[in-house]
Amino acid sequence: VVLRESPIAIEREGAPGAVVFVCEHASCRLPEELGTLGLDDRALRSHIAWDIGALDLARGLADAVDGTVCYQRFSRLAYDCNRPPEASSAIVGRSETYDIPGNQGLDPAQRSARVKGIYLPFRDGLAALLERRQAAARATVLVTVHSFTPVYFGTPRQVEIGILHDSDTRLADAMLAEAQQMGSSFVVRRNEPYAPTDGVTHTLVEHGIKRGIPNVMIEVRNDLLVKGAMLDPVVEYISNMLNGAMSNTGSSSVRR
Amino acid sequence: VVLRESPIAIEREGAPGAVVFVCEHASCRLPEELGTLGLDDRALRSHIAWDIGALDLARGLADAVDGTVCYQRFSRLAYDCNRPPEASSAIVGRSETYDIPGNQGLDPAQRSARVKGIYLPFRDGLAALLERRQAAARATVLVTVHSFTPVYFGTPRQVEIGILHDSDTRLADAMLAEAQQMGSSFVVRRNEPYAPTDGVTHTLVEHGIKRGIPNVMIEVRNDLLVKGAMLDPVVEYISNMLNGAMSNTGSSSVRR
Repeated sequence: VVLRESPIAIEREGAPGAVVFVCEHASCRLPEELGTLGLDDRALRSHIAWDIGALDLARGLADAVDGTVCYQRFSRLAYDCNRPPEASSAIVGRSETYDIPGNQGLDPAQRSARVKGIYLPFRDGLAALLERRQAAARATVLVTVHSFTPVYFGTPRQVEIGILHDSDTRLADAMLAEAQQMGSSFVVRRNEPYAPTDGVTHTLVEHGIKRGIPNVMIEVRNDLLVKGAMLDPVVEYISNMLNGAMSNTGSSSVRR
Repeated sequence: VVLRESPIAIEREGAPGAVVFVCEHASCRLPEELGTLGLDDRALRSHIAWDIGALDLARGLADAVDGTVCYQRFSRLAYDCNRPPEASSAIVGRSETYDIPGNQGLDPAQRSARVKGIYLPFRDGLAALLERRQAAARATVLVTVHSFTPVYFGTPRQVEIGILHDSDTRLADAMLAEAQQMGSSFVVRRNEPYAPTDGVTHTLVEHGIKRGIPNVMIEVRNDLLVKGAMLDPVVEYISNMLNGAMSNTGSSSVRR
């Protein structure tokens, strides 16, 4: 199955900065071909469908450090591009307190259609972007950008900004050191609210670690990503962490 | 003290609908004359400074029922226009977990300057708007629009939409009956998360009850007011409640 619309979008590819920001959960839109998956409007716009505010954050950060943005155009309910095809969590039948009827009891052909229509073109498009940079001998840093819900299963989360990593800890270490040095306006934690054991580092491994590109995953509590409210201070704080970390680890960055 | 900028803004005054939506906490901007009140950027953009998303909600509702919007241009930290001058909560020295240095130890002249610069022109401007409608024999319904934080003093709030009233319960009763009839996509409660005893019905009393205008206060949890996410379904749900309630109580409304 080939979707009418490509699942991958790239913005600011010509920007001079080193950072490629990747947003796998940027949108709550479903491909027309999938209908509503049996969900009401409320569920389709909730945090189970996308990372609310993550694309705004990625764009703000890209603007602040003159980087590039690559995002997936469809809801993670269609296919979670931060999961490999063999993971059961790539297409979920249930998320937090919601059932997702249209994702239950899929046969192998239906699963394969989602993989071919969404995962593979996104993976290949991102790989091609990174390869174009490599061919041009451009310094590259991979930063995946996510958001999480302030209250999960009824429990409030204290962490505000999570800095997550897999086996390559260089950039995460440097960012956390930078945060400590800056003094913290925000509650910043390592590998919270998720950790590699939750399977959230697929993009980091597939596109960063396998290529030897410095990489990190950023998770921000979505109540801090409201435009006109806390988004700007969050963008400023994280871009300072990132710029500081990159100059300390020798990755080049272009400040405005 | 006269501020350079008027604290009151009116939008869509010519709209044919009966509802005047009032937003006393629409903005986090401080009048230049007050500086930062000793707060950092983070505090100045948090829910203590304004009702995040409330103006977007008011504008969405006004659009849905062809009503008018009246809002206060400055942060409630400068002066909370839903409080009378004699209330200590009109200018707060502390809010939730934040101290507000610039509001502490004010002398009577300083308090009076805030009252004259913000409260009185807002109160008089709103009164004048309602009097113009009365003079033109236009049906009028007063709806104040607020938002609240999902987690308060570390505790998550279950209520999503609060329908609040003072001694005039007509519109609130009719809206709650309508919500029950529609079936609830949202958790709707009477006089939650605040009640008249919290002093939140000043505008209702001053501008609605004293004039005999049907009135109600709407409080929505601010995580439901994100544009592109849940804002549209919330606007649709509340405007349905309001239209249904007004046709049952005999107040006229113009549907689109």
